[in-house]
Amino acid sequence: MMRIDILTLFPEMCESVLKESIVGRARERGLVEINCRNIRDYTRDKHGRVDDTPYGGGLGMIMQVEPIYDCYASLCEDIGKKPYLIYLSPQGKVLTQQRVKELSRLDNLALLCGHYEGVDERVIEEIVDEEISIGDYVLTGGELPALVLTDSIARLLPGVLAADEAFELESHYSGLLEYPQYTRPYEWKCMQVPEILLSGHHANIECWRRERALERTFQRRPDLLENAKLNSKDKAFLDKLKQENKRGG
Amino acid sequence: MMRIDILTLFPEMCESVLKESIVGRARERGLVEINCRNIRDYTRDKHGRVDDTPYGGGLGMIMQVEPIYDCYASLCEDIGKKPYLIYLSPQGKVLTQQRVKELSRLDNLALLCGHYEGVDERVIEEIVDEEISIGDYVLTGGELPALVLTDSIARLLPGVLAADEAFELESHYSGLLEYPQYTRPYEWKCMQVPEILLSGHHANIECWRRERALERTFQRRPDLLENAKLNSKDKAFLDKLKQENKRGG
Repeated sequence: MMRIDILTLFPEMCESVLKESIVGRARERGLVEINCRNIRDYTRDKHGRVDDTPYGGGLGMIMQVEPIYDCYASLCEDIGKKPYLIYLSPQGKVLTQQRVKELSRLDNLALLCGHYEGVDERVIEEIVDEEISIGDYVLTGGELPALVLTDSIARLLPGVLAADEAFELESHYSGLLEYPQYTRPYEWKCMQVPEILLSGHHANIECWRRERALERTFQRRPDLLENAKLNSKDKAFLDKLKQENKRGG
Repeated sequence: MMRIDILTLFPEMCESVLKESIVGRARERGLVEINCRNIRDYTRDKHGRVDDTPYGGGLGMIMQVEPIYDCYASLCEDIGKKPYLIYLSPQGKVLTQQRVKELSRLDNLALLCGHYEGVDERVIEEIVDEEISIGDYVLTGGELPALVLTDSIARLLPGVLAADEAFELESHYSGLLEYPQYTRPYEWKCMQVPEILLSGHHANIECWRRERALERTFQRRPDLLENAKLNSKDKAFLDKLKQENKRGG
């Protein structure tokens, strides 16, 4: 079973997210072990401080190396080995579903959440195996990124999703955006479900969905088409879209 | 004051994150109003269901249009206008700091969190103003993305960060990755803080930091350099890096 340890100054906040929904159920069912460790428990400062001003001046506070290192060392001792340690940081490589998939195969993962203006660089040099950013925007701390990474990994673990195949069909998994979905009622505010979805003709439905997924990806995220797995029928459909697009514009 | 409303099936989970840390303090200080509204409160199904199977077959469940619409309508009634509604979705445009900045200028924002295999497409057609994805990976629901978006926006609101200038210096704001930071102790495990940071010579420190930021961005995220604001000194330094890189490789 995979074990994920989150090193954070906000363990209760992380725990309140991790006990909910799909990840919460996966933990209850013993499909993944997730623990939160409070970095503040490892400070030797009598006031419980874990940060200090930056050398060289500047705004904000920097998390000190010692409490983080001691927190990590106690984790290593508890599990009897060094987990793969990821620091969630805007300086990291941007997360992709491919990387999530690779990380989901590891046995032990530890996630370090920074706060304030960041952590002392020597922490990164000494213990961090990889820096990951969840996107090109700035957040107040590393907790939400750690929870995002945990969520994305947990749902790929065997048995976590209701149907093993579920994730095969989803966005970014086959490299395309998803086709539109509809459920009851059939008519709402004069908008009806597309007729083909009621036809019962599975091959036609599959073809319609594939075309909508291609169309949507072409319109919104053409960059994804470069790495998507496309067959000759897909390619012919895309060529048609491109030609229509030229005529339309 | 900005108001953000999160429409979700997991209001307690969202609330437990939003009451913590910087965003929690900003709410207490009346700098931003954030509310969570439970979509399930608006179902007319006697068993409290909000989802159903997809038309046309397939795995997973789809969130129905009616509870979402009624939840949104009640919000519109409460605030006396239509808030700008964002649906957090893998099909959306990928979030950037530039978009965060633009959104932080709005008065009313509503964030719709999907779950299961997504929402009935007609919800999107009828009420959603924009679809946003926080990155190219798959999550179990829209709550973490909504919290990420809320966090990124809230920290830009006037008065939320300790120093108004703080965010000017940070990653992705000036378009470069951050320089390394150090704090006490001066020496740790034989690793010392770079001497220049103790020199007290502010212009030299500023120059060293700028060069480290450029170097790091060049090494890790050269794509960011295209849109970064660079002066002639920056460009000269980058040219030097490129030449060294060529010789080294």
